[in-house]
Amino acid sequence: MPFTNIIDKPSLIISKDKVARNIDKIISKVENIKKFRPHFKTHQSFETGEIFRKKGVDKITVSSVDMAEYFSGYGWDDITIALLVNIREINKINNLAGKITLNLLVESVYVTRFLEKNLQSNVNIFIKIDTGYHRTGLLPNDDKIFEITKVIKSSNKMSFAGFLTHAGNTYKAKGRDEVLEIMDSAYNQLNGLKKRFIDEFPQTIISYGDTPSCSMATNCDIFDEIRPGNFVYYDIMQYHIGSCTLDDIAVAVACPVVALHPGKEEMVVYGGAVHLSKESLEGDNGFKTYGYIVNLTDDGWTLPIAGAYVSNISQEHGIIKMPEKELLKYKPGDLLGILPVHSCLTANLLDNQIII
Amino acid sequence: MPFTNIIDKPSLIISKDKVARNIDKIISKVENIKKFRPHFKTHQSFETGEIFRKKGVDKITVSSVDMAEYFSGYGWDDITIALLVNIREINKINNLAGKITLNLLVESVYVTRFLEKNLQSNVNIFIKIDTGYHRTGLLPNDDKIFEITKVIKSSNKMSFAGFLTHAGNTYKAKGRDEVLEIMDSAYNQLNGLKKRFIDEFPQTIISYGDTPSCSMATNCDIFDEIRPGNFVYYDIMQYHIGSCTLDDIAVAVACPVVALHPGKEEMVVYGGAVHLSKESLEGDNGFKTYGYIVNLTDDGWTLPIAGAYVSNISQEHGIIKMPEKELLKYKPGDLLGILPVHSCLTANLLDNQIII
Repeated sequence: MPFTNIIDKPSLIISKDKVARNIDKIISKVENIKKFRPHFKTHQSFETGEIFRKKGVDKITVSSVDMAEYFSGYGWDDITIALLVNIREINKINNLAGKITLNLLVESVYVTRFLEKNLQSNVNIFIKIDTGYHRTGLLPNDDKIFEITKVIKSSNKMSFAGFLTHAGNTYKAKGRDEVLEIMDSAYNQLNGLKKRFIDEFPQTIISYGDTPSCSMATNCDIFDEIRPGNFVYYDIMQYHIGSCTLDDIAVAVACPVVALHPGKEEMVVYGGAVHLSKESLEGDNGFKTYGYIVNLTDDGWTLPIAGAYVSNISQEHGIIKMPEKELLKYKPGDLLGILPVHSCLTANLLDNQIII
Repeated sequence: MPFTNIIDKPSLIISKDKVARNIDKIISKVENIKKFRPHFKTHQSFETGEIFRKKGVDKITVSSVDMAEYFSGYGWDDITIALLVNIREINKINNLAGKITLNLLVESVYVTRFLEKNLQSNVNIFIKIDTGYHRTGLLPNDDKIFEITKVIKSSNKMSFAGFLTHAGNTYKAKGRDEVLEIMDSAYNQLNGLKKRFIDEFPQTIISYGDTPSCSMATNCDIFDEIRPGNFVYYDIMQYHIGSCTLDDIAVAVACPVVALHPGKEEMVVYGGAVHLSKESLEGDNGFKTYGYIVNLTDDGWTLPIAGAYVSNISQEHGIIKMPEKELLKYKPGDLLGILPVHSCLTANLLDNQIII
């Protein structure tokens, strides 16, 4: 039975083959799979996690304590929470640290002291470094780095793990050269810190994460650890950055058609902001878009239909612009597929997911 | 104990008093509460639904079959699903129609014929009219209206309920006068249709919905039914349109502070796109914003802090711009409140909700 038969509302369709291929491609960029700690915030799915496990992955990154609890429940026992420690969650952190290898991020002396006083089990601590994204983290020359390592050293619950950055600035880069420059600069900054601290903390590693550079670099071996996440599904934002081909995008949102307006070259689908998210970008056609349109097939989907895109969304509706010739192939009750702009947000919104 | 003590992660705080006041204000605009069929898509919460029930409301609007099932489970037995019928959900529709008074929307002859063949219980059918928003619906002079009423008349499962519009074009209106013109024009179009069909279908009503016009009009008695939704919570988008005051906004998202960057006049909170949504608007300051900042108090929150706003969000992080003087009052682990740009999307994302 084709998978489309069981769909009655907006659903995330996940191509297992594309996911496996995307994972293989990233694994090939490190000499040892132990350097690979994929970020599971994109998929948040134990089933997609199992595809990683079969490839030999045994440590992961997540972006919240809740997500760490979720994956710990599925047997993942070495988890980095790549959001600065939220001290209000200390009870949940202690609970997790008692069960698994837990790696936390800090950038504040105050928070590190709080952990020293309140931790009940052992954790590893990374210092978050700002290598150019300027969202969070300390600059490499910030004296607080010394203060934090001192607090860690004096603690019998914390071990210093090393320096970690998220190079989110690659998302604004213009082309591969600039992406690789950002990666190189991050390496130089992190490695400079590693050299300064390696004698005092011989286990110091440098951990780097972001999908555009890990996708575009020929290899990522300069780092001790990489943490890309989005690559597992990719999306049209990554396609526009140059991280992937359209064929690499491993998810599509199946949406039932509810109305056809051929005079306006428009179609209305059940599928809106609570399914796709409001993330948008400027498409090749110069218009704002919330997704590209594909035809669903018995075992997947086609490449995008030329000239078709999600032009607007409200809470539950999506408005699809589509050339009349293509549009007239549809009737209400048919399904179409939408390649999302930002798969992390779309996967987070859609509970009903079908792996094909 | 102040409600803030129990919060360890992003949470939707709902002010019961403000919700009740917002409901009272809308009810005062119709001569009879029977004309009021609030849209529950904004809150999607049985608890907020109970506040409506205590005011005497006994019929509601929702935007999906799933939402109708949810509220039917809490005793709501007269529900309009204000999304065009998705025929793939016919089994769930039949199941609901066997239990409650179910009102559906169509704009297509094809779908109406499908319903005629496949319905197993009685439903009421509205024809969706496009009175200017141009998202869905038939123009008032479209011949399909006659065809659809013919199919309905010949069916022993469908009763014709009347004409329904959503005047979403008020969201782009410049000021109260234009909003009221849109409302007036919608009334004239719907009432023209009612006059043409009232002899054949004496039960015909005209149903109108949107928050800006129902908030700004002195009264809404020209319609047989109004279906505003967002007014229950409001948000800063509605404040900018002119539908409400800042003090009317009945929800705030409590977010733990995870980092302070006084040098940049920035703060980082645990609270991002998976909590607030990516809905943004241009603030009074000319910058893009994802929310305004308030201080939480023991029993609610203050008015927004001047010059403070959410300037950027990623999946789990929010970046708050805040004058240094205000910022220095905070430390990591404190909570701040965010008034959302679009409360419907924020409430949809946040499972943990606290009514105060």
